[in-house]
Amino acid sequence: MTALAERIAREFGTPAVVIDLDRVERNIARLQAACDGVGVANRPHIKTHKSPVIARMQRDAGARGITCQKLGEAEVMAQAGLDDILISYNILGEHKLDRLGALLRSGTRVTVAADNPVTVAGLPRAAAAAERPLRVVVECDTGQKRAGVETPAEAVALARDIAGRPGLVFAGLMLYGPVDGVEATRRFLEEAQAGLRDAGLEAEIVSNGGTPNLKNLGAIAGVTEHRAGTYVFNDRMMMAAGMASLDDVALHVVSTVVSRAGPERGILDAGSKTLTADTGGGLDGHGLILEHPRARIARFAEEHGFLDLSACNDRPNVGDVVRIVPNHVCVVVNMVDRLVAVRGEEIVGEIEVAARGRLG
Amino acid sequence: MTALAERIAREFGTPAVVIDLDRVERNIARLQAACDGVGVANRPHIKTHKSPVIARMQRDAGARGITCQKLGEAEVMAQAGLDDILISYNILGEHKLDRLGALLRSGTRVTVAADNPVTVAGLPRAAAAAERPLRVVVECDTGQKRAGVETPAEAVALARDIAGRPGLVFAGLMLYGPVDGVEATRRFLEEAQAGLRDAGLEAEIVSNGGTPNLKNLGAIAGVTEHRAGTYVFNDRMMMAAGMASLDDVALHVVSTVVSRAGPERGILDAGSKTLTADTGGGLDGHGLILEHPRARIARFAEEHGFLDLSACNDRPNVGDVVRIVPNHVCVVVNMVDRLVAVRGEEIVGEIEVAARGRLG
Repeated sequence: MTALAERIAREFGTPAVVIDLDRVERNIARLQAACDGVGVANRPHIKTHKSPVIARMQRDAGARGITCQKLGEAEVMAQAGLDDILISYNILGEHKLDRLGALLRSGTRVTVAADNPVTVAGLPRAAAAAERPLRVVVECDTGQKRAGVETPAEAVALARDIAGRPGLVFAGLMLYGPVDGVEATRRFLEEAQAGLRDAGLEAEIVSNGGTPNLKNLGAIAGVTEHRAGTYVFNDRMMMAAGMASLDDVALHVVSTVVSRAGPERGILDAGSKTLTADTGGGLDGHGLILEHPRARIARFAEEHGFLDLSACNDRPNVGDVVRIVPNHVCVVVNMVDRLVAVRGEEIVGEIEVAARGRLG
Repeated sequence: MTALAERIAREFGTPAVVIDLDRVERNIARLQAACDGVGVANRPHIKTHKSPVIARMQRDAGARGITCQKLGEAEVMAQAGLDDILISYNILGEHKLDRLGALLRSGTRVTVAADNPVTVAGLPRAAAAAERPLRVVVECDTGQKRAGVETPAEAVALARDIAGRPGLVFAGLMLYGPVDGVEATRRFLEEAQAGLRDAGLEAEIVSNGGTPNLKNLGAIAGVTEHRAGTYVFNDRMMMAAGMASLDDVALHVVSTVVSRAGPERGILDAGSKTLTADTGGGLDGHGLILEHPRARIARFAEEHGFLDLSACNDRPNVGDVVRIVPNHVCVVVNMVDRLVAVRGEEIVGEIEVAARGRLG
């Protein structure tokens, strides 16, 4: 494998972000089988790869639609022929509502999320421009304290609000439940569903999310679909969460050791503008170096990764090419315009991170 | 100003990264005057803006050449007509050496840095391909423990190595001295210069760097030029370092409040894929919200900025557009393909971050 990394360095320069398509396919197939096994639809989150090529692999393996975190991602995916897109985010403001209208008018099946009446009040503008109904799910918070209404009663009230607006269709509930709070999520959903029935409404989809939450796949009654993103590549964070082994990690960063000014330290050409300062929820160090697992990426400058080699017996030399498993893969992919694609020991091409750089 | 932010949100959507060219010009003029005042050449670091448009503004104001942190940046700048480029980094590996050769052959004056014999041994390949001499400075470490030889004796040995290689020209010394370690830097330079004289070599340039190090501009004998990057925009880190006031900050991120699910919390549409997880060297919170300075950007998801509003009396509502001064501006610019340019209250266009996304 190091021979391959050196070939990549020669052909593409470093740092390079590399994915192994064999492993990607295996990860895609495994999640699809898990979803199929418990009868939950698979709606993978494309924020991790931002590539229509990989989204098509997920669809062709059986995914029922995709998830995007922002409108710019959805526009790129729809343009590339992906359909049934959930934008799991509050869409606000004229600029975005007009783009949402154009996306809807293009014929793509689009569902958006809302957790407040201001968002809901804006959405009919998009539906009217498209002259097509817009599907809206109510984002519910069952413990993460991010976005999402905090109580089942609020969820029902917002569902009624949606159902009463011209051009909007209440499509269901969306949550990003805490991994260790399944009971709270169950109670929230039961109460919300009862309230919806009383209001004469029905949640066509109940969508849960997150790769770590695959632990709870099939364990929450009423959940109809799951949105996982990171599973497609995996990273150090997923390994720490027990969701992936090193063999399941399909992405690494190829980097060169550019300086060894002291005996116990060195510099990689991958800094915060490549690996990002994301700690992966508090992991020690900024990545795992496959060739030197006891080397610690202690800190960053923008184009410098500071290596602490004090715990290494076998220390890398200037010019050595190494492979790094990043802490958090989604933010690393977002740094580059292209991924180098390999299968085993073979370089098979480049894949564009087509939906990158779309702010909003 | 909020009227302008709302206009930007309507015309470009949020998050948007906005620069005020009036302030940029003021920052450029102020640094140039400071350099001129002490007779130190100004070689601004373009890693902060990655824009040939802004590099030309710096050159036209009197900069003597520019600094790039990687070859990809230098290629874009040279293509746009910028000349006299210092790449302040060890360039290693065939892929980069061949590109460096092509850059040199194009007629651009290029200087590169080296802190070890492996790098030096590789560089003649570039000079030979270009059939032109390549200028090389020795990177010296006077306390930062990043890259750079640790002792004056090593600096002299590496200078001799460079001078003895076909196609290479020893051009001088480069350092990134610690702000509070001027005495150590002085001693290092004195000793190194004495050693160089003994070896019959001369440092044509002695280059120091960093915006915080402008405190020491003119205070270190022998330093001939300075490489500052962040000063062109400034950020929360420069404010904390006493290097900029709020009036000197020329960049902010326009963001929308998209959720207020709890009374003391909210969500911005600027998360770690916009503002980055860079803490700016340990600042509290992830940015300063101009409209709500007591709101704390407590943490991030990729497209969510988590607002802690417990200390705010005047709390923002869903749909409100706010302006954020980021912790570290260089990594934020690196996230986007385009900046929105304003002058005072007027939107004057967009500026491409042309050298972004060039890994290596």
